[in-house]
Amino acid sequence: MNSYTIAKTLTQPYDVVVAAVRVALHEQGFGILTEIDLKATLKDKLDVDVAPQVILGACRPALAYEAMTAEPSIAAVLPCNVVVRAVDDTATVVEAFDPDAMMGLANNDILRTVAADAKQRLTAALAALDSTEGEN
Amino acid sequence: MNSYTIAKTLTQPYDVVVAAVRVALHEQGFGILTEIDLKATLKDKLDVDVAPQVILGACRPALAYEAMTAEPSIAAVLPCNVVVRAVDDTATVVEAFDPDAMMGLANNDILRTVAADAKQRLTAALAALDSTEGEN
Repeated sequence: MNSYTIAKTLTQPYDVVVAAVRVALHEQGFGILTEIDLKATLKDKLDVDVAPQVILGACRPALAYEAMTAEPSIAAVLPCNVVVRAVDDTATVVEAFDPDAMMGLANNDILRTVAADAKQRLTAALAALDSTEGEN
Repeated sequence: MNSYTIAKTLTQPYDVVVAAVRVALHEQGFGILTEIDLKATLKDKLDVDVAPQVILGACRPALAYEAMTAEPSIAAVLPCNVVVRAVDDTATVVEAFDPDAMMGLANNDILRTVAADAKQRLTAALAALDSTEGEN
């Protein structure tokens, strides 16, 4: 799809997937610090209709702290966004910002280790959503 | 400093700068959709002490909509973070994610136009904070 996200399409309705993503992130040690209902926000601000979608700002505090200590500026790319977006009534995409893309921005050894850890956990969270579904 | 933020250091206390950043973003058409008090979050979750700092998630809905329409995956890097971080009692850094860095991730003509608009507005917001202060 692109070089800056890791994504998975599930043949489940949006609401079911949003709930499952919350559980999967929690099980990988991510708290959800922010939440933007994009559909509601764009309807409210611009009166346009987009597919149901939410941006969940996931943060594993220990990783965030380690990254910030190594490079304070990294806060500008935190938390790690996980977007859930309805394709139609029965299909939903889950798409997370790929920590490897962050490494294309910043570059030092500690950040590399932190990003690898974050990527492993996000990949595990996506895998846990439904091991019978295909990834893309 | 680095290649993925635009930053400015002000010789003003943290609380004053946070308030000024809210006004400056508003004047450039950005709403603040999310807000993470990093100091409070890390104290609460890890019992560690960091400098006062907040991540403001700034969004200009029209730009977000245009970007998402061109490339749905771009939601994974929205909103545009603006970090305000205390250096000491009298100096504060304001650091925004540079939309040009987003262009290093995604790449199409509409996104380029949107990113240029966002960067112009963020740069204007930082410039408005205090035209007598030096940028870094």
